[in-house]
Amino acid sequence: MQGLTIVGAGLIGCSFALAARNAGLCSHFEAIEPDPVTAQRALELGLIDAIVSEPAVELPVLLSCPSHLVVPWLQQLAAHTPPIFDVASVKGAITQQLAGQTGPAGFVPCHPIAGRETSGPDAADPDLFLQRLVIITPTGNTDPAVAALVRGWWQAVGARVEEMDPQEHDRIYARTSHLPHLLAFAYLLGIEPTDLQHSGGGFRDFSRIGASDADMWSAIFNMNRQELKVALDTFRGHLDEFIAAIDSGDMEACRRLIHKARSRRSTLER
Amino acid sequence: MQGLTIVGAGLIGCSFALAARNAGLCSHFEAIEPDPVTAQRALELGLIDAIVSEPAVELPVLLSCPSHLVVPWLQQLAAHTPPIFDVASVKGAITQQLAGQTGPAGFVPCHPIAGRETSGPDAADPDLFLQRLVIITPTGNTDPAVAALVRGWWQAVGARVEEMDPQEHDRIYARTSHLPHLLAFAYLLGIEPTDLQHSGGGFRDFSRIGASDADMWSAIFNMNRQELKVALDTFRGHLDEFIAAIDSGDMEACRRLIHKARSRRSTLER
Repeated sequence: MQGLTIVGAGLIGCSFALAARNAGLCSHFEAIEPDPVTAQRALELGLIDAIVSEPAVELPVLLSCPSHLVVPWLQQLAAHTPPIFDVASVKGAITQQLAGQTGPAGFVPCHPIAGRETSGPDAADPDLFLQRLVIITPTGNTDPAVAALVRGWWQAVGARVEEMDPQEHDRIYARTSHLPHLLAFAYLLGIEPTDLQHSGGGFRDFSRIGASDADMWSAIFNMNRQELKVALDTFRGHLDEFIAAIDSGDMEACRRLIHKARSRRSTLER
Repeated sequence: MQGLTIVGAGLIGCSFALAARNAGLCSHFEAIEPDPVTAQRALELGLIDAIVSEPAVELPVLLSCPSHLVVPWLQQLAAHTPPIFDVASVKGAITQQLAGQTGPAGFVPCHPIAGRETSGPDAADPDLFLQRLVIITPTGNTDPAVAALVRGWWQAVGARVEEMDPQEHDRIYARTSHLPHLLAFAYLLGIEPTDLQHSGGGFRDFSRIGASDADMWSAIFNMNRQELKVALDTFRGHLDEFIAAIDSGDMEACRRLIHKARSRRSTLER
């Protein structure tokens, strides 16, 4: 890679730059970053070599901006010929919005399962993608040769790559990522300021994702609202089962529900 | 301490034995344990010196059984003179159930904020209480001299001790511990078996407490149902605010809610 334009010099964009530089994949990174403080910090830390106002025509582009900005960027880059890949947590909605449009032929939809509740250039980590899963959701328009190239870049920074249907992606991540974030945010709104000093490790782990970025997550919730609401309805049904067991003082029913819940997680390491 | 009878040779009971032995606080531990496999394992691991059928009259007693068994044990031990302390996650309900009864004068209600999703003697950890908070909720019946003694034992195994009103305890832990467990369990019931292989660190942290013990947590939910339902109503109200923002496509409202949620956790380390 002779260089890469990164749209959005946040945690993911800067971590990719750092990892790609360390892996010898690329040594020149240009970034488009609307926030001047973030832009300055990415330069100071040596993560980015130049702040630019638009992608150079000859360079591949990494769209590491909030999810709702991916489609507008792709429309703007319709004539761009080098590969373009994104990192948005929503894939089906982007594919649907692009359907029927003449987008860039070199677009490869990607989603690294490597989030973190911290953000910005200071949180950049060269090992962020190490042994992490990256989901690629090719569409009918995706050039297989370009997809193979982008797959190789992710592998170069240490990731495992898996292909998936974009709608299936959105169903799975509504359940395993978007719903937990929504629950953690809603939960934290009910916490009293003095509660924290009495909280234990369970609280800390459970609410960690509740410290995630507001711009990023408001965009994800809105883009994947359909699948998120399916997951939420399922959750509410199960919560009501628990409440019924607790209200009726049926400890055995409550115990059975917990037992079933635990078993859903049993194959996962701690 | 010339010896200690431990009622329930699970994670907490065995960890206390291990920590107390290491600290030189006590070197003889007898246990009452209804499950023969657990009892045998606690002996094999050298955590417990003898399995007995009732507490020796001259020894202090640690009630590390599920929360709903604390009051029945206290009734059975009404004539016991050495100190008795428990580790139940619910304190107000126990105090209420004991009100007006002639219970043991040496009972000191305790709650170590040191849970873990693993259980049994094999999970025992001598450092489980190190730098952890232990809440003591003395009642009108609690002998201050005995409370001071029990406080010293917790400090000997590395804990920080704080006194609190039992009802205030139940309100705080309904919010910071019982509700998150309930949400994690209800959430896990909606997970598909194939979801785990696609899940990331956020899922793992958020759902970790959902692997907790079923007997223990069904008892806690039932005993603290009143405060738990207050916390749950608050949670549902906040969840509905999010849903309204997402349904109406009001990303700015959604962003504001997330921002507020994040700030609730901002003073806590990761």
